Amino acid sequence: MPATDTVHIPLPDDRDYEIRIGAGLLDAPASWQGLPKAAAAVIVSNETVAPLYAQRLRERLLAVYPRVDVVVLPDGEQHKDWASLNLVFDHLLGQALDRKTVLFALGGGVVGDMTGFAAATYMRGVPFVQVPTTLLAQVDSSVGGKTAINHPLGKNMLGAFYQPERVIADLDTLDTLPDRELWAGLAEVIKYGPIADAGFLCWIEDNLDALLARDKAVLGYAVRRSCEIKADVVGQDEKEQGLRAILNFGHTIGHAIESGLGYGEWLHGEAVACGMVLAADLSHRLGLMPADFTARLRTLIERAGLPVVPPRLGAERYLQLMRVDKKAEAGAIRFVLIEALGRAGLHAVPDALIADTLAAHGAA
Amino acid sequence: MPATDTVHIPLPDDRDYEIRIGAGLLDAPASWQGLPKAAAAVIVSNETVAPLYAQRLRERLLAVYPRVDVVVLPDGEQHKDWASLNLVFDHLLGQALDRKTVLFALGGGVVGDMTGFAAATYMRGVPFVQVPTTLLAQVDSSVGGKTAINHPLGKNMLGAFYQPERVIADLDTLDTLPDRELWAGLAEVIKYGPIADAGFLCWIEDNLDALLARDKAVLGYAVRRSCEIKADVVGQDEKEQGLRAILNFGHTIGHAIESGLGYGEWLHGEAVACGMVLAADLSHRLGLMPADFTARLRTLIERAGLPVVPPRLGAERYLQLMRVDKKAEAGAIRFVLIEALGRAGLHAVPDALIADTLAAHGAA
Repeated sequence: MPATDTVHIPLPDDRDYEIRIGAGLLDAPASWQGLPKAAAAVIVSNETVAPLYAQRLRERLLAVYPRVDVVVLPDGEQHKDWASLNLVFDHLLGQALDRKTVLFALGGGVVGDMTGFAAATYMRGVPFVQVPTTLLAQVDSSVGGKTAINHPLGKNMLGAFYQPERVIADLDTLDTLPDRELWAGLAEVIKYGPIADAGFLCWIEDNLDALLARDKAVLGYAVRRSCEIKADVVGQDEKEQGLRAILNFGHTIGHAIESGLGYGEWLHGEAVACGMVLAADLSHRLGLMPADFTARLRTLIERAGLPVVPPRLGAERYLQLMRVDKKAEAGAIRFVLIEALGRAGLHAVPDALIADTLAAHGAA
Repeated sequence: MPATDTVHIPLPDDRDYEIRIGAGLLDAPASWQGLPKAAAAVIVSNETVAPLYAQRLRERLLAVYPRVDVVVLPDGEQHKDWASLNLVFDHLLGQALDRKTVLFALGGGVVGDMTGFAAATYMRGVPFVQVPTTLLAQVDSSVGGKTAINHPLGKNMLGAFYQPERVIADLDTLDTLPDRELWAGLAEVIKYGPIADAGFLCWIEDNLDALLARDKAVLGYAVRRSCEIKADVVGQDEKEQGLRAILNFGHTIGHAIESGLGYGEWLHGEAVACGMVLAADLSHRLGLMPADFTARLRTLIERAGLPVVPPRLGAERYLQLMRVDKKAEAGAIRFVLIEALGRAGLHAVPDALIADTLAAHGAA
């Protein structure tokens, strides 16, 4: 058995859960023991991941649950909508599966968010387990209990805070991840440095080549440290009343890029990566950070195979897209900005300054 | 100012709220003070209730909120679906309303359930206030935090537990209620007697004529006592792990009637009324209650203008419809049965016995 790291997520009302990180976890019987009992489990996956891992997971779960179904959704952010979610409900109701049924989200962030939202709302809530198979899902979306689907007018606009019973992050599943998705996951890993841990940022810079070469020990540390930081932030602010917003560094412009181009054109991590470069620039323009921080972050993001030049949508369109951001309040666009290496905060930014940054980076 | 009764709903994590019951509450400024601050409020109503009360409520809310919008949904249980819910989301996102926006549910149970579910899921949760204008909503659906929409395969199958900030039950709004809806509301009032308070059952029998004549003092007591009982049960079991299920007396067969005939054919209260007669009969067949209890309940329900003979859907169809009930577990159909006057519990009932009861009441 390879070593398994465990990150504990403390939450009130018996909603604590564990993130287990390691190689070989999918096939380890212990991964699936001690979960809520039920007459049936349902694996929700997508057409890319299901052929790789669904039958293996199903066989393992059959040691615990009398019945294990598999529901396969279309792949991609553009399918993170009500129609896909309803495929899960149609199956659950069509098979008359009861309110103890346990859902297993096998896939990336889209599968995790949709399965979590289905679990939050099916019969007003059934248990679910996250089995993230992408780096992005392992370091970010499977941790913290945010679930959602997109609406044509905005990303993740409909959802719920709903915690999983457990997260099983099997590092071996990253072997089948395309390079582009590995790089997109690295964007969220990089994010944790500037917002919370200057030392981690240095570590990423020193170990980026090993991460890109998929060195499993190095990937394992990156996943663990990312989950620890996210767990620490979420533990202090489960429902995003304040602190938790810092996890959205790079996401305000990132969401505008995704939504402006149409979901699925850029990967979420790519849009966030580019958004971080612009948010670093805004941090500088507001006098919070020196100019060389933007250059340092851009260099790291480029080395990770990620885009640093936003699509040319025009400043007006960007501003319009950012006004529906969930962080916006009464019309003012708010950004997570870096206040010092390892510390971030939410700042309302005047439209004119945003337009300057967009123009300086070729977006306008 | 007429007298206002207040029922306090105790819940953990600062989610306590008040139900205020009285005449003239819609126009009383105090009803709308002390709610969460926001740049905008949105009244969600339906095409029947909005013309009667939406502008009056809007004017009162404009004393508190800079902007108050009105969203009008189609009326009826058959519209309690994703398409109607999406009309609310389309408005909120189309107007770029932020996550502090307060929703006001102005109408009956359908409006309350849908507005509550919209509030639970818009940007992962915004505050909402219940303003129930039907007897059924005042005594039942606006209390307890259950929100939901229907799925073609089952009623209230998709939803969330989500508590309002306050409930304002203005007895004057019952003046515009059609008789059939008043009677349907009485079904849920009657329900509280057998499951929780034998004395209240006697009181209803003694005061039914005054209730039918819409005597406001008598209606006020019925609403208050119903809310107290529901609050007591919900306070002990917010998420329906056990005790709370007793509130579903009459609902297992009731939901099957609604779903089998198509939503909107029978009113919810009518279906529940008839379901209570059959559940009383099952309580007798299982040896829990004497036969004259069924007769007593049937007499009261008939006096209230409610149906006591179920539609002839056939036993097989009834059993099939009841198997997707949320209370069902691993295939066994479970009923809330009366164990003594004022006490109820959940019981798995064999299919053959259910078929007997259905046949004896002309449903098979």
